[in-house]
Amino acid sequence: MASLLNFGVIGTNWITNSFVQSAHESKKFKLVAVYSRRLEAAQKFVSETPSISDASSVKTYEDLDALLSDKSLDVVYIASPNSLHYAQGIKALNAGKHVIVEKPFASNLKEFDELCKLADSKGLFVLEAYRHIQEPNFLKLQALLNDPVKKAEKFGPIYGASVNMAVYSSRYAKVLEGEEPNVLSPKFSGGSLWDMGCYPIMFTLALFGKPVSQAYHPVIIRTGVDGGGHIIMSYSAEASKQKEKFTVHAHTSKIYTSTAPTEIYCEKGTIRVNGATGVTDINTIEFVPSGSKDAEQLADTNPEYTGMLNLTWEAKELGRIVSENDREAESALRSLSRDVLETMEDLRRQNGIVFASEQ
Amino acid sequence: MASLLNFGVIGTNWITNSFVQSAHESKKFKLVAVYSRRLEAAQKFVSETPSISDASSVKTYEDLDALLSDKSLDVVYIASPNSLHYAQGIKALNAGKHVIVEKPFASNLKEFDELCKLADSKGLFVLEAYRHIQEPNFLKLQALLNDPVKKAEKFGPIYGASVNMAVYSSRYAKVLEGEEPNVLSPKFSGGSLWDMGCYPIMFTLALFGKPVSQAYHPVIIRTGVDGGGHIIMSYSAEASKQKEKFTVHAHTSKIYTSTAPTEIYCEKGTIRVNGATGVTDINTIEFVPSGSKDAEQLADTNPEYTGMLNLTWEAKELGRIVSENDREAESALRSLSRDVLETMEDLRRQNGIVFASEQ
Repeated sequence: MASLLNFGVIGTNWITNSFVQSAHESKKFKLVAVYSRRLEAAQKFVSETPSISDASSVKTYEDLDALLSDKSLDVVYIASPNSLHYAQGIKALNAGKHVIVEKPFASNLKEFDELCKLADSKGLFVLEAYRHIQEPNFLKLQALLNDPVKKAEKFGPIYGASVNMAVYSSRYAKVLEGEEPNVLSPKFSGGSLWDMGCYPIMFTLALFGKPVSQAYHPVIIRTGVDGGGHIIMSYSAEASKQKEKFTVHAHTSKIYTSTAPTEIYCEKGTIRVNGATGVTDINTIEFVPSGSKDAEQLADTNPEYTGMLNLTWEAKELGRIVSENDREAESALRSLSRDVLETMEDLRRQNGIVFASEQ
Repeated sequence: MASLLNFGVIGTNWITNSFVQSAHESKKFKLVAVYSRRLEAAQKFVSETPSISDASSVKTYEDLDALLSDKSLDVVYIASPNSLHYAQGIKALNAGKHVIVEKPFASNLKEFDELCKLADSKGLFVLEAYRHIQEPNFLKLQALLNDPVKKAEKFGPIYGASVNMAVYSSRYAKVLEGEEPNVLSPKFSGGSLWDMGCYPIMFTLALFGKPVSQAYHPVIIRTGVDGGGHIIMSYSAEASKQKEKFTVHAHTSKIYTSTAPTEIYCEKGTIRVNGATGVTDINTIEFVPSGSKDAEQLADTNPEYTGMLNLTWEAKELGRIVSENDREAESALRSLSRDVLETMEDLRRQNGIVFASEQ
């Protein structure tokens, strides 16, 4: 199928702007509709998004049902607050639209399973938007680690990893002043784990598979969600894709910043991953052999492959899956999304963090 | 007391060389005797240690009892393999000598308590040599965090920390070749926790007090000890010196290297500590306020205060304690040493790592 997928967006924040830009660059999508609770926000979004060449071809809605009844729409991209992903996803699927939903997929596994079941019953796709696992440099690292021969030759057995993404959010200052911004509110399925921790967890599971057990040691903030903390994920030799027993430490925060790199510890040396923000937008992958200080660059440092907030690789792959009806790729991504959400839900529940939708 | 303490050393490796150098620089000690199992090693040590101005004034021994019966000796410094600290310490105390023992104090708490009991019964000192907690920059950080007013003003509540010291040892290559070097052997109370993890644990406890619980996720190597891993230490508001609930992640290894900095996460920003090796020999203490990228230097960067393997501060303080018979300072250090050893022993035993002396 060479024709473009017509898509509409729910939500008009900075990530939507970036996705529209990248979706157009991917040559897989064409934006045809924008929904916001306030029509002016939708209109402002259309007029201010540079990659929309013909603003008059994009319809704006403040009524979600009206957007979803638009016959020209193939795909809906959902970038609303986390707590709304489920209900809006159900609506979109019921309207016969494929769904691309921003991370994290849903508030819990129950919502995830219902969304997938409905999509299957209608023959539609529902895909989660994790940009970092579609980036060329991540795929390069993944390919090296998942090739048993190359891995044994280059890295040897894996002894562990530290996967980091801890960046202070100015919205935390609002919390300290008594406000409750969506991203740090249990009402909107917020918190550091759901907003940011999902990245290092997805990074870890995409490389190593699902841990056999996990623990989270968070700081609980005034609103009742986690502000950040340390996660321990344990792998048995049987369960790991790497066929070794090891532990991954993941670190996430929205209430303070860490400059620690992401590192994978191997018998033959340390792999150091530096992204623009933690494990996203990977710029460098350095391998430092044991006992040496000389780093070998494993990343492609072509500027096209690096930089900040490039969602083109994600848009290209998700667009390809829908266009080509690639059910195998969908199944692999869905299985990964489910494992990530199951891991996250366990980490959240073991700390008594409950979202409003679950009360 | 202005006169110098006459001291003898047990062990002739690089750390002994460094201690002798620093002990002389501290102007608290004078080396008078050296013990090694091989007399040539003791003689070689005397002739090759630059700070010994008059080699003929230093006696050499290959018989430990002979060294300990030397009436001119006030203090014995023990830097033998960990498993020998206990028996040699008991011997030295029974011979009426004060003891300075290299970290870690002993193989377990039972040995620690027996050494302290014997020292008390004889009115002698037994002090553990942790150089990093005597360094001016560490003391500066400690003073800032332990002053409630200054801390509240500058840092605000503490949300957690990552304390790192993970450096590949070439002796691990020997293990992979089938050998069993002391430092990685259960026969000599070796392993990453006992050899290197004790530093970040001491750093953590010296700043924050004893955690209410701790967990260790190690990689167990061929010899049966830990090669490295992640430690989680949990603080309750009641137990912590800081009067807050938070978690410290500590990372240690001798089988791979991590370049992650040590960081303390506070409401008002992140304190980043960089030592020559993890948390020892602290060169810089940077404070980066929340939402800012501008680091403020809190360390004294006077070259006299920085650099690698400077044990002078430790020698000065331990020498002062003995010379001035400062029982209050001894009691504080002993309490810290005991807490560290109790924490380490729990971490070791929860992973089934048993030393030969305990079998």
